[in-house]
Amino acid sequence: MDGHGRDEDKVDNGFNHEEEEHGGRKSSNNGAEYEMSVEQIFEKREVPPWKKQLTMRAFAVSFVLSILFTFIVMKLNLTTGIIPSLNVSAGLLGFFFVKTWTKLLSKSGLLRQPFTRQENTVIQTCVVASSGIAFSGGFGSYLFGMSERVAKQSGDNGGFKNPSLGWIIGFLFVVSFLGLFSVVPLRKIMIIDFKLTYPSGTATAHLINSFHTPQGAKLAKKQVKTLGKFFSFSFLWGFFQWFYTAGDGCGFINFPTFGLKAYENMFFFDFSATYVGVGMICPYIINISVLLGGILSWGLMWPLIENRKGDWFSADLPKKNMHGLQGYQVFIAIALILGDGLYNFVKVFTRTLTGLFYQFRGRQSLPVAHHHSSDTSDKLSYDDQRRIQLFLKDQIPTWFSVAGYVTIATISTIVLPFIFPELKWYYVLVIYIFAPTLAFCNAYGTGLTDWSLASTYGKLAIFTIGAWAGPNGGVLAGLIACGVMMNIVSTASDLMQDFKTGYLTLASPRSMFVSQVIGTAMGCIVSPCVFWLFYNAFDDLGLPGSQYAAPFGIVYRNMSVLGVQGFSALPKDCLLLCYVFFGAAILINSIKDMLGKKWGSYIPLPMAMAIPFYLGPYFAIDMCVGSLILFVWEKLNKEKAAAFGPAVASGLICGDGIWTLPSSILALAGVQPPICMKFLSRATNARVDNFLNPKS
Amino acid sequence: MDGHGRDEDKVDNGFNHEEEEHGGRKSSNNGAEYEMSVEQIFEKREVPPWKKQLTMRAFAVSFVLSILFTFIVMKLNLTTGIIPSLNVSAGLLGFFFVKTWTKLLSKSGLLRQPFTRQENTVIQTCVVASSGIAFSGGFGSYLFGMSERVAKQSGDNGGFKNPSLGWIIGFLFVVSFLGLFSVVPLRKIMIIDFKLTYPSGTATAHLINSFHTPQGAKLAKKQVKTLGKFFSFSFLWGFFQWFYTAGDGCGFINFPTFGLKAYENMFFFDFSATYVGVGMICPYIINISVLLGGILSWGLMWPLIENRKGDWFSADLPKKNMHGLQGYQVFIAIALILGDGLYNFVKVFTRTLTGLFYQFRGRQSLPVAHHHSSDTSDKLSYDDQRRIQLFLKDQIPTWFSVAGYVTIATISTIVLPFIFPELKWYYVLVIYIFAPTLAFCNAYGTGLTDWSLASTYGKLAIFTIGAWAGPNGGVLAGLIACGVMMNIVSTASDLMQDFKTGYLTLASPRSMFVSQVIGTAMGCIVSPCVFWLFYNAFDDLGLPGSQYAAPFGIVYRNMSVLGVQGFSALPKDCLLLCYVFFGAAILINSIKDMLGKKWGSYIPLPMAMAIPFYLGPYFAIDMCVGSLILFVWEKLNKEKAAAFGPAVASGLICGDGIWTLPSSILALAGVQPPICMKFLSRATNARVDNFLNPKS
Repeated sequence: MDGHGRDEDKVDNGFNHEEEEHGGRKSSNNGAEYEMSVEQIFEKREVPPWKKQLTMRAFAVSFVLSILFTFIVMKLNLTTGIIPSLNVSAGLLGFFFVKTWTKLLSKSGLLRQPFTRQENTVIQTCVVASSGIAFSGGFGSYLFGMSERVAKQSGDNGGFKNPSLGWIIGFLFVVSFLGLFSVVPLRKIMIIDFKLTYPSGTATAHLINSFHTPQGAKLAKKQVKTLGKFFSFSFLWGFFQWFYTAGDGCGFINFPTFGLKAYENMFFFDFSATYVGVGMICPYIINISVLLGGILSWGLMWPLIENRKGDWFSADLPKKNMHGLQGYQVFIAIALILGDGLYNFVKVFTRTLTGLFYQFRGRQSLPVAHHHSSDTSDKLSYDDQRRIQLFLKDQIPTWFSVAGYVTIATISTIVLPFIFPELKWYYVLVIYIFAPTLAFCNAYGTGLTDWSLASTYGKLAIFTIGAWAGPNGGVLAGLIACGVMMNIVSTASDLMQDFKTGYLTLASPRSMFVSQVIGTAMGCIVSPCVFWLFYNAFDDLGLPGSQYAAPFGIVYRNMSVLGVQGFSALPKDCLLLCYVFFGAAILINSIKDMLGKKWGSYIPLPMAMAIPFYLGPYFAIDMCVGSLILFVWEKLNKEKAAAFGPAVASGLICGDGIWTLPSSILALAGVQPPICMKFLSRATNARVDNFLNPKS
Repeated sequence: MDGHGRDEDKVDNGFNHEEEEHGGRKSSNNGAEYEMSVEQIFEKREVPPWKKQLTMRAFAVSFVLSILFTFIVMKLNLTTGIIPSLNVSAGLLGFFFVKTWTKLLSKSGLLRQPFTRQENTVIQTCVVASSGIAFSGGFGSYLFGMSERVAKQSGDNGGFKNPSLGWIIGFLFVVSFLGLFSVVPLRKIMIIDFKLTYPSGTATAHLINSFHTPQGAKLAKKQVKTLGKFFSFSFLWGFFQWFYTAGDGCGFINFPTFGLKAYENMFFFDFSATYVGVGMICPYIINISVLLGGILSWGLMWPLIENRKGDWFSADLPKKNMHGLQGYQVFIAIALILGDGLYNFVKVFTRTLTGLFYQFRGRQSLPVAHHHSSDTSDKLSYDDQRRIQLFLKDQIPTWFSVAGYVTIATISTIVLPFIFPELKWYYVLVIYIFAPTLAFCNAYGTGLTDWSLASTYGKLAIFTIGAWAGPNGGVLAGLIACGVMMNIVSTASDLMQDFKTGYLTLASPRSMFVSQVIGTAMGCIVSPCVFWLFYNAFDDLGLPGSQYAAPFGIVYRNMSVLGVQGFSALPKDCLLLCYVFFGAAILINSIKDMLGKKWGSYIPLPMAMAIPFYLGPYFAIDMCVGSLILFVWEKLNKEKAAAFGPAVASGLICGDGIWTLPSSILALAGVQPPICMKFLSRATNARVDNFLNPKS
């Protein structure tokens, strides 16, 4: 399960590697049992039949957690779009909830069924599927990019469609299940025949397996305690901050830590527990890339371009106009993202094709072998035997998935044009014809590289469908096409990650599938509701400079505008800069790959560098603070930092994330914070003092 | 040495007990050597002759440290008047400096003399004597109470004398050395015959002894490291805070942590590293007393009295008038302080007299014994033998001290009336006739209870001389008389503490005396200079509500006004309230003593309760935060908290204290902070936003 470990493809990759390390460390913590293989340790424990793996309590816990994580993902979507992997916290909290539940029940003698790792996997799958919709629903990107608010900022005449609870739920229901059906028949090929690694899924499985050994449970308990402590701290800190935010520019989120001049250029530490936590989870190179991008853009380029005011662009333009400085910010960011996306698409696609080529050649040379690729030894380990046996026990018939796909695709093709008149039925049909292939490619690529290209496939859809639809409604058509594509491709790779996790924890593919279906359905309702809460609670949502700026909304919309209108949308000399950065992204990636794993890891990631281009580097500073904390901690006590770092980070992220629930409820109820913590220059302060107390 | 461990008598007591425990712990840390007595461990180490104990490097280090500690004590004087014992940090830093110095020299082969504990004692003595002047000089109390600024606030017509570098240094030089000469002849009686404990002096000696054993040095090194870490943090924090203080009411020191309403009543956490550190050093009961006093006064009484505006006092009065609310604040605080002072004066004096009575009865029954009291065993331990031998080796002739006292007293009697025309020469003479007796009493009382009554004797002088001088200049005469008395009495007990420390570390009484004389001379120059820096750098020094409010200035002045004018100075019903609180102070103390050590320690201290009456409870909240940190730390790891708590606290206090040096230099140079962090209510903020951006 790569969960929400993606925002803009590459960042995801980093997170997942982190995840992988974590999982690796986890299992090595059970050193005492290392002589026995995992499944030998679990040999005595009965694997419940698939229907018993799907318990009511699992779904109850999943529902609670999916609300929690939807809030977190939504907050991240709407602030920066950087979403770290929350699998560890989902795993930890799921384990904690059910363990507490079963402990209480077993004390009262009412426990009918013990807590198994299969059940844990079901929870994990369900939560990740549900909160995954908060990402693939595009609330911070394509879906919000259709709104009037973003359209006004963009200044194009591509029309708009404002968010509304009704159509969003409808839209999500008709597009979110296709991905599941499209890859179900391929699970045996991917997991058993191709033996794809799916690093995130594998790591999650290691984590769950370790939780259910005695030592693992003990460590998990300590981790949960740490998580809880930092959860409370972060929640209370969010609460405390709230009191000082009466009005714009008030509160800790506007603290000019490095002075007012730096603050104007968005260099400040905004005391966000979330992004400090995110920084602790992300690998150092991501944090440094983001900071570098911020320094390059807000420290260097924007001030220089700003100086060209009146020459490169009209000095009379309002500050947030796409034909002024903001145009440069958005389009250069798009150029970087597209350059990076293209390079990686080509790279992963090539690897996918090469991989497939070797796989099939291998199969031909070994026609009888149905459970492993040619280049591994013939003898299967005990673990593999047992896993394969259980994985193949519960089948999902192919006719079922084909029928499911065709039915939903038909409904979707009919329904979507009613919701979005700009999206003609034949566009949808074309997408659905190509989608299974792309879904397979993405699932395969993720299995190889742990790198979901969902948003890249989405951008592909923006440009192709947008160009096809033309100036008449093409902007909106492109954005919706992006949504349709992303949902399919993203859920496909998610499900395959889950199958891998299930394979390694002996959970049945059927229970995985059901859990994912239920989780997706939950997500289709929970995510729009949470978004709706944010949308109504915060009036300035989506406006640049506000707390919830939803930066990718305008980025996605402008991609679509670019697809439809070509380069005419760009201010002067912007195209040249875009070419330069597009080329630079490809170049940097090539250098990174050429240098190999050791030195390449010191090269920054263009995708991560692009994020602060539009937003400003303030969150990069939060993330670097997180990095710094982890770095110092690792210097002091490497083992402890490795064991508890992710728990601390998760606590910080979850606490601050869940604070947005009461915070948005307060905003809805019209309860406003009482105090404004304001930052004024000395001169302004003297004026204000004089205004407030004219006598003194 | 009780050093600056006093502000208003009782608080001191608590600090010293803390100190005592610390010292106790210290020595028990050397468990490995415990079979041997202390002097057996040190047997091999030669004790240098007294002149060799007084090295140049010792005085160089003392000078640096005495500037550091004068800054800290001055800052504490001028903010709240609460001064914790800084002996531990003085000991640690002195050890650290000389150790580093000798290490460097010994590496370069230039070391002529190894670092001995006698030398360490000399540094300790010199630093404490020097920074003691910052307290007994009355820069926050009687001396500043004479200034025009305080006179205006008080509203009496008792005249004023503004501080000026010249006369302050002169005044200090003629009064500060008398205490030293007055008790020197009694050292043998006090230390050897009476075997007085002097808990602070003993604790300091234990500390110094432990530093010079190998384990002790290792622990001291770690403690110094911790101190250094928190020193840097606290210094940088002070620096960071500075940037946000452009203007009144700006910055973290005005952070309305508990809301604006609570802030108006002075309930807020002002992020002062100093008082968090002070809270960590003070025993819990002091912090709780201060908080209780704050809640009682600012949470309950002042709002109630404020409601009587127009009835009890004129509603037209400016806010800070002594006939309005401020009068209640100051006089009720005075009532509490005097009640507490009287009770403890009677108690300690009774104990002193009883003690003396038994001592002399003991001596008479055992006329030959000159080195111990009758109720201990005749046989002297090895330690005692060696200590007595060295203590009696270097004598200070009695004629020398008598001559010194008479000479300085004569000079002083002639000079003082020239500086202060209000102080007639016969007042001074009377004080100098009684002073040696009172000095002896105080030295004896401190030896028994570790409780210097210096400021109580000072108050006695205020009332007697003030009443004697009458309305014509009595207010000023009382204040100066207080200064003369306090200086004698305070230095007397300090010196005796030092003799005890010297006795236990085998330092010669002569070197102690010389060190104290040099330290006092340093203090007479350094303290006025530091005060002068503060006075010139901060224009609002001494004004209520400002950063350096010097609260005891107005308290001392009003005592003197009370002594001269009687109760006519008080607003309506204030006298009744004063009687109630005076009685309550005595009652609470009696209950405390009656309940015994165990339960009595849960009864708050009236003296500590009085401090926030005038200032407001904000610093009490800082101190309670310090307590809380220590409490949690002790719960987590009692041993570590005990070993490093004082180092952390000292680091916090020293770092913030030394930041006042650059901060006042910046203020003098006219460099103003660039940003104001302002706290506005929502309504005011809306008005300000409208004022700053009329369009939006």
